[in-house]
Amino acid sequence: MFKVKVVVRRRSSILDPYGKAVEQGAKLLGIKNVRSVRINKEIDFLVQTDDEELAQKEVIELCGKLLANPIMEDYEFKLERTDDN
Amino acid sequence: MFKVKVVVRRRSSILDPYGKAVEQGAKLLGIKNVRSVRINKEIDFLVQTDDEELAQKEVIELCGKLLANPIMEDYEFKLERTDDN
Repeated sequence: MFKVKVVVRRRSSILDPYGKAVEQGAKLLGIKNVRSVRINKEIDFLVQTDDEELAQKEVIELCGKLLANPIMEDYEFKLERTDDN
Repeated sequence: MFKVKVVVRRRSSILDPYGKAVEQGAKLLGIKNVRSVRINKEIDFLVQTDDEELAQKEVIELCGKLLANPIMEDYEFKLERTDDN
């Protein structure tokens, strides 16, 4: 089995409206020094196989077809073998 | 200045419907071994001060009041001093 962590981020050239909203919210709360907020997705999951090549193939397919928007997002991932069943 | 990374996660006892949707989507795409998907938020930002204590105070306030829902989410964060201006 593999433990997987994927992070999906908008490209830095693309505006992040949710991040902008957090910056404005911070100002309204009197939190004065917060800048350049970007909100990303972190996805944790398991891949139930002992075949690392298959696990990696499934992660890449999941990222490309379901988790990330290839037009405006990039992703990175880490696989970690685990013994839990 | 400090570079900050916050991760906000639902408590594991609380259902993650978006994660469930990803699991079902994976199955529909023929990706068979993906299990236990959890979607978290990763928030990157800068705090424009050289006072580490103030930076930490602002991060905790931002997390508690704006980024995390204290009823069902936990957060963790890392501060890293940076020289960029």
